[in-house]
Amino acid sequence: MPQYKLYYFNLRGWAEPARQLFKLAHVEFEDVRIENGTPEWEELKPKTPFGQLPFLTVDGFEIPQSAAILRYLGTKFGFAGKTPEEEAWVDAIVDQFKDFVNPLRQVIMAQRGENAEEVERVKSEVFNPARDTFFKILNGILEKSKSGFLVGDGVTWADLVIADIITTMEKLTVFDVSAEENKNLVAFREKVNSIPEIKEHNEQRPDSVV
Amino acid sequence: MPQYKLYYFNLRGWAEPARQLFKLAHVEFEDVRIENGTPEWEELKPKTPFGQLPFLTVDGFEIPQSAAILRYLGTKFGFAGKTPEEEAWVDAIVDQFKDFVNPLRQVIMAQRGENAEEVERVKSEVFNPARDTFFKILNGILEKSKSGFLVGDGVTWADLVIADIITTMEKLTVFDVSAEENKNLVAFREKVNSIPEIKEHNEQRPDSVV
Repeated sequence: MPQYKLYYFNLRGWAEPARQLFKLAHVEFEDVRIENGTPEWEELKPKTPFGQLPFLTVDGFEIPQSAAILRYLGTKFGFAGKTPEEEAWVDAIVDQFKDFVNPLRQVIMAQRGENAEEVERVKSEVFNPARDTFFKILNGILEKSKSGFLVGDGVTWADLVIADIITTMEKLTVFDVSAEENKNLVAFREKVNSIPEIKEHNEQRPDSVV
Repeated sequence: MPQYKLYYFNLRGWAEPARQLFKLAHVEFEDVRIENGTPEWEELKPKTPFGQLPFLTVDGFEIPQSAAILRYLGTKFGFAGKTPEEEAWVDAIVDQFKDFVNPLRQVIMAQRGENAEEVERVKSEVFNPARDTFFKILNGILEKSKSGFLVGDGVTWADLVIADIITTMEKLTVFDVSAEENKNLVAFREKVNSIPEIKEHNEQRPDSVV
């Protein structure tokens, strides 16, 4: 078994689904957590493949970018879809999520600015329309799913990404778990987070808003 | 051989590297081009998997999202890297490009607004720093490359994506082909566009700014 090291900030963020994949696959890895804004990060940054985190090393071989890492591990561990067509749908769902990241980031930045009017403007003009589009897609997929997972008959890395981002949105108070229109997404997250390995991981992990 | 149909607007845009992949692989496909803003698109839109273009059909099976389509075809046709590690780097480069799309889109929107001051602001505050970061990564990869391609010893779908986006940036006047600091990227694009199948495709394709 190769030696895996996953380098990321001390956050869930872009690395959490990769940490969960290791647990799902019962594969050991070193969970290297770097505090942002420290001399340690300033020293590491220019040595990373793309000047950013996360990156993974596999016996020293470096792989940057969270989705690339997840696809690599998901494929290796058997959680990336069972056919080329399933793999394509796993990819497409995560690509669609990536298109939603910028609106999500804008709401996070606005919240940090603590200007209530600006937060409302970003929500109504940018975030809410993007969220509605994205949720419509996810709900459509879940309605057609026989397994309750997003693709095929078992959990894939796309499920981990989406379940974790629902938690992030809840923590950012932009996802209402009690809203009727969110009930399928809440049930989906519960299904993913009830997988014994994921449940145990989530109970033990250092928690963070993002 | 399955029957492929690629649905996109009458642009290069997010579909062009997929069209090039078909040519590289000498595989027939139907290049369905839909004019934006027409009743035809309004009618098709709700029937598409994610409400948007491009999407691919493979004997009727639908695959949305450009990178998912490219990875699916690239893997099938042998242009996605030769090992799991090469595949991960192809993915990572395109993921890094996707992080650059939003700054690029902002400069396109600003140019459409025709407010010269706003264009300069977006360029200096948003686009230029993102472009410099992205180009530094690409140049670093090319400097280490023995083949002149981004990953491994042959062309991959990442090369097609990056070569075509350089052309788009040139057409948008945000890439200076004569600048000394761009010479490796210009040589790279020339290498990709000199592949006989790509050269022939590019000469025959309907051209567009994006």
